[in-house]
Amino acid sequence: MLRSCAPRLRTLGALRGPWGGAWPPASEPGPAPRSFSSEKDILVDFALPNPSWSQDIRLLFDQFMKKCEDGSWKRLPSYKRGSTQRTQEFKTRFLDPKLMKDELPQAQLFTRSIEDGLGFEYVMFYNNAEERVVCLFQGGPYLQGAPGFIHGGAIATMIDATVGMTALIAGGIVMTANLNINYKRPIPLCSVVVINSQLDKVEGRKYFVSCKVQSVDEKTLHSEATSLFIKLDPDKSLI
Amino acid sequence: MLRSCAPRLRTLGALRGPWGGAWPPASEPGPAPRSFSSEKDILVDFALPNPSWSQDIRLLFDQFMKKCEDGSWKRLPSYKRGSTQRTQEFKTRFLDPKLMKDELPQAQLFTRSIEDGLGFEYVMFYNNAEERVVCLFQGGPYLQGAPGFIHGGAIATMIDATVGMTALIAGGIVMTANLNINYKRPIPLCSVVVINSQLDKVEGRKYFVSCKVQSVDEKTLHSEATSLFIKLDPDKSLI
Repeated sequence: MLRSCAPRLRTLGALRGPWGGAWPPASEPGPAPRSFSSEKDILVDFALPNPSWSQDIRLLFDQFMKKCEDGSWKRLPSYKRGSTQRTQEFKTRFLDPKLMKDELPQAQLFTRSIEDGLGFEYVMFYNNAEERVVCLFQGGPYLQGAPGFIHGGAIATMIDATVGMTALIAGGIVMTANLNINYKRPIPLCSVVVINSQLDKVEGRKYFVSCKVQSVDEKTLHSEATSLFIKLDPDKSLI
Repeated sequence: MLRSCAPRLRTLGALRGPWGGAWPPASEPGPAPRSFSSEKDILVDFALPNPSWSQDIRLLFDQFMKKCEDGSWKRLPSYKRGSTQRTQEFKTRFLDPKLMKDELPQAQLFTRSIEDGLGFEYVMFYNNAEERVVCLFQGGPYLQGAPGFIHGGAIATMIDATVGMTALIAGGIVMTANLNINYKRPIPLCSVVVINSQLDKVEGRKYFVSCKVQSVDEKTLHSEATSLFIKLDPDKSLI
């Protein structure tokens, strides 16, 4: 079946989607109970605690949920497959209907495609007034690069997802143009880090976002990154 | 079990391992038959064709295997878990023995952790004289970012793996210090791209490597990246 999975997409202009995190929460349904079964879990919100979560990420999660009580912060739900109005809009606008019918049902969000606890365990919170997104990330044993440490690509993935979400909340449908990561210290497998992302500047349709990846006690700076996103022009067709 | 997966690693100085690709081939065993069973496949070489490979990647694979006949190019095998002398050396030098015994058996190379055909399908070839590594990459449906397209983090992962391998072959044990990616055009899910990586410069212990990610017909430049790797000083302990 996969052999027939040839690209049948219309061509975009010169951009890539930063859809690596949860979709903006406004149009999402409320959290559904977290499941570990292999059944279809399209509507399951994965940005909630599960048995693989360490004490470190649980404590941080509780702290941020507390911050959500006055409405200054909001937790972002996260699904394996997009089913929001904006996702549908993107599909309608950019994708070949044939591909949507035949192939896309297989597709899953990369950051939710590895079994619970073994890959990316994370939850994002955002503060609208401060234009910040914070991601709590626990990297499982299937994310290994150097023996005992998280792969640089897995770190890049969570960075992309977090800065992408920051830009997305600020700018709507945006696309990544640049990602520049400085790796300072390796992240041990199964440990928890905090990704702090901040919208730095907006110049026309350009959104500049930076982030830091730090240990839970904030004593270790593991990585830092800058990024540039471009907001799509609604009056200009990309097809 | 994963709940107890707290970091018990010794601390590295200020670096991360670029071990995202296959290990240098000199000390590897020969290719083993590709298996689709769920049995332990530690010694299975995953850098070989399987039923999920499209015609595009098969044709490119055959072309590069042809180039290997005169010895100018070599195919790099790829395993889920490192078992080479150099991997063992790294573990002995940097990892806590308790962690190795209790936790590391779970660990898998990130780029080989998603089921066959659904995630990263790739093979690398290297040319020692030209200091180049070429990666043929087919991104499966579990690597989705924007609907219908490969996640920027998955692209970053294959870039990191490829430039990391180039630096590793040239410099031995090196660590990524910087990865700077320009995303030009999105990559449709299930399509094949070619990552061409080149060692640009060596300054003392600094290895500068760049790459381009192009379509099979070379007409589309999807992404380009520069990177910096630092070679570890064998006389300087990092622990």
